[in-house]
Amino acid sequence: MSGVGVSSGRASGPVARVSEPLPEPAPGPAPADPTAEAARIRPAADAVADRLFQRAARVGGDAKAILETTAAMAMDPALISQAEQLVTGRSLPATRAVHEAANGFADALRSAGGYMAERARDVQDVRDRLIAELLGSTPPGVPELTEPSVLVARDLAPADTADLDPDLVLALATEEGGPTSHTAILARALGIPAVVAVRGLLAGETFAGAIVDGDLGEVDLRDEPVPAVAAERGVRADWNGVGATADGHEVKVVANVGSPADAQTAVDAGAQGVGLFRTEFSYLAADDEPDVPTQRAAYADVLRPFAGRPVVVRTLDAGADKPLSFLDMGVEPNPALGVRGVRVAFDRPEVLDRQLEAIAGAEADSGAEVSVMAPMVATAAEAAWFAERVRAAGLRRAGVMIEVPAAALSAREVLDAVDFVSIGTNDLAQYVFAADRMAGALATLNDPWQPALLRLIAQVGRAGAELGKPVGVCGEAAADPALGGVLAGLGVTSLSMVPAAVPAVGAALAAHPIDAFRRAAEAALATADPAAAREAARAALA
Amino acid sequence: MSGVGVSSGRASGPVARVSEPLPEPAPGPAPADPTAEAARIRPAADAVADRLFQRAARVGGDAKAILETTAAMAMDPALISQAEQLVTGRSLPATRAVHEAANGFADALRSAGGYMAERARDVQDVRDRLIAELLGSTPPGVPELTEPSVLVARDLAPADTADLDPDLVLALATEEGGPTSHTAILARALGIPAVVAVRGLLAGETFAGAIVDGDLGEVDLRDEPVPAVAAERGVRADWNGVGATADGHEVKVVANVGSPADAQTAVDAGAQGVGLFRTEFSYLAADDEPDVPTQRAAYADVLRPFAGRPVVVRTLDAGADKPLSFLDMGVEPNPALGVRGVRVAFDRPEVLDRQLEAIAGAEADSGAEVSVMAPMVATAAEAAWFAERVRAAGLRRAGVMIEVPAAALSAREVLDAVDFVSIGTNDLAQYVFAADRMAGALATLNDPWQPALLRLIAQVGRAGAELGKPVGVCGEAAADPALGGVLAGLGVTSLSMVPAAVPAVGAALAAHPIDAFRRAAEAALATADPAAAREAARAALA
Repeated sequence: MSGVGVSSGRASGPVARVSEPLPEPAPGPAPADPTAEAARIRPAADAVADRLFQRAARVGGDAKAILETTAAMAMDPALISQAEQLVTGRSLPATRAVHEAANGFADALRSAGGYMAERARDVQDVRDRLIAELLGSTPPGVPELTEPSVLVARDLAPADTADLDPDLVLALATEEGGPTSHTAILARALGIPAVVAVRGLLAGETFAGAIVDGDLGEVDLRDEPVPAVAAERGVRADWNGVGATADGHEVKVVANVGSPADAQTAVDAGAQGVGLFRTEFSYLAADDEPDVPTQRAAYADVLRPFAGRPVVVRTLDAGADKPLSFLDMGVEPNPALGVRGVRVAFDRPEVLDRQLEAIAGAEADSGAEVSVMAPMVATAAEAAWFAERVRAAGLRRAGVMIEVPAAALSAREVLDAVDFVSIGTNDLAQYVFAADRMAGALATLNDPWQPALLRLIAQVGRAGAELGKPVGVCGEAAADPALGGVLAGLGVTSLSMVPAAVPAVGAALAAHPIDAFRRAAEAALATADPAAAREAARAALA
Repeated sequence: MSGVGVSSGRASGPVARVSEPLPEPAPGPAPADPTAEAARIRPAADAVADRLFQRAARVGGDAKAILETTAAMAMDPALISQAEQLVTGRSLPATRAVHEAANGFADALRSAGGYMAERARDVQDVRDRLIAELLGSTPPGVPELTEPSVLVARDLAPADTADLDPDLVLALATEEGGPTSHTAILARALGIPAVVAVRGLLAGETFAGAIVDGDLGEVDLRDEPVPAVAAERGVRADWNGVGATADGHEVKVVANVGSPADAQTAVDAGAQGVGLFRTEFSYLAADDEPDVPTQRAAYADVLRPFAGRPVVVRTLDAGADKPLSFLDMGVEPNPALGVRGVRVAFDRPEVLDRQLEAIAGAEADSGAEVSVMAPMVATAAEAAWFAERVRAAGLRRAGVMIEVPAAALSAREVLDAVDFVSIGTNDLAQYVFAADRMAGALATLNDPWQPALLRLIAQVGRAGAELGKPVGVCGEAAADPALGGVLAGLGVTSLSMVPAAVPAVGAALAAHPIDAFRRAAEAALATADPAAAREAARAALA
């Protein structure tokens, strides 16, 4: 069966199937005593939350936060009281009432768009846990693993995997999800093979063993057990920490970070700097815009571990797709195509200017070598407008993200106006293919190996080489060790990724000279689909 | 003041200002007798509807349908009863209750996305008429014109302009709206200059006169009256009906149609055929999918006026952005980036096959020379899949729309798989600039003269020339006489547009040889923004 390979390598082993959500509860029969039926919901919610809190107590860091958030969602008073009212008001069984109430919440989140829509999956997770509790069934999710296994699931929610033991997971295969889904990011963070969007994966009977090839995007299910074989992770240990090809052509290997904890993880992983510092975290803490000293302190906390090293700070990426209450943006029918990123600043330049002042201050406080870039720039005029404000704030290096196709098509003019660009492959692919990154049905289109996407990246790479200005990549594509060298071959001069992927990508770059990567890139560009592009690149390097 | 020129030419005259909606009604004071206050709403709705029906009775065709639809919306029982409940339940004044109820409806439409979202403007129009009626004020909209005038408005709703006397409108200028708004389409249909998205247009005092330049995208408001001077429409009368440049290079001038009435209008306007036959009308009549004989008869009605001439039929373009109940698509956070167009057919090929069978039957019934194309194709593999089904249905020529940037970036591979392509500039611009075509704030990005868009069109034109296959344009860009020649210079071989624009575009093509248009295209490609591109093309042809 074939899907979209989102994390490199090949592994096999016994299958651990993530339990499916229970079937949709029937709207009847009506309970004999609706009041008593309604009263079952709150204790069930408490039990679900308790179990999640217990799991949270056993772990730390992000895993703890994810499990606690999910637990809090299960006890959401609005959700519970709406479900209770559906039982008493419409005489629904409690299971059905929970189903309808949660779906109403999830739909509302989905229509709120991008950022909020990603939370819809979590509400569904809570819904399924509540229904299982009401039925006395096994809660959905990852079974307790006792041996190294290949996880097979419809899709994975953060709560499913938060306290997963990474040593017991050989590979991931999911029926839904896309290249930027939680499953994909987790797999790359763990350095294990993964294939998502495998249509029909769960259609048949239960299988005993599986072989997952993250490079070919293939999953082979077997009736008989398959011996556990982990993917080779040999090369990563060899990386010397210097981002360069075998013949010394420099390609910086840097990290994406969004919090002080991320920054430390990135340093520990050996990142040479930061290629994408997402600053939204400092705005999410309060309902109002944080003042300049608050922002300055928050940014300095992230920058400090990188004193003396380069960090690219991205200015606020919010708007229609990621609503912040103080921006008061209103609802748009297509948030991803709306007033977001730097577009918000055109009407509210003072918000941008305050952030730039805070960034300049944090640079002085931390000693990091700061560059600043804007998200969602579409034209050279927008790039020039941004660069002027950056320089007015006393910052030295101004750049822009290339994530709008128009900016890539005008790469030369855009690069003329700034000091560097960084290609955001996740959003760029979404627009180039007109395919929502969150839509499982369109995951194949969002594959970063799509030749049309590589062609556009090549146009930007050529413009960078001609003007002698850096061209980075900071989307999920940069975390794929097999793709990293191909991107270098297309003219990309730095790769920024989730910290866990740093050693593997660094080692993969060091494995071949730049001319070999250029030939691999040419071979990939000449193909017509992502699987052929992967195969052509591999063959060229073999 | 500058905005986005959406219809060519320069005109001046006295200003007729479209009345602004009344200010937002206050939520208080609470009515002394809420029941009596609530009872005022229904008679007001009846009065508004009556007035619209009276206007409808005086006109025919589309204007009648638009006015009747708006009248029906004013009497919508759900809207009225919700407003009544806001008065009795929350003690709001009737005006405020209508405001809130209508806004709730409009928000719901907007979050439903694309197609439904376009209806939100109509609900707001009804809201403003109801509030004016309750206050005894002048209803919003176009004043009764007594002399040729320049219409100045925030934006124009279909009901505003349905029964406008075209002989009394010299030009249009609006503060909001975009290149594909009702205002833009109306202006091109009337052949009068128009500039939209003019920020600050309504901010100052009332002006007596205005000069509108649709080529430069400029509006000049004057305190003193300005003599009425209509835009020159001289050239259009000269067109001989043959789509070709001055030196005989063929560029077909064809029309966009979506109903039998459109088809007759297109023939009367001198269209050489149809470049885009939108088939959605046959699906909108009922809740279920129409059966094959019903579709066949509906298509034959549109094809018959074109017996012996070429017609390009586009298969069903519905889905996340244009919900049809029988497709049962669910809500997506970004409908424009969702499962729409041909993507719907991947899961439901039988719906496509039935439509192809009906189209093949209608071709036989009508004698038109039918080609078939698919909307929203992204890759060569999708194009090949579609072409195979078209040929299996016994139809001879299969093509695809180029409206997803990836398809343009893979133009050669896509053209290899089909017989022709047609560039849908409206959606293509929306994706290339990641800017919703309906978002007034982003209208400048959706300008079809954007150099990045022209560069992508040039890539498709080159691929068509190399493979010797036709490349059409069927977006609003094709209706701009100044742009038509530039598109021909980029390698486009047919232009398909609103029927009213046919003579002007035909005449503009005949005014210069193809080499002059190629030079104009080169000049436009070398610029950095739409205004410079327009000016460079004009200068090259002067």
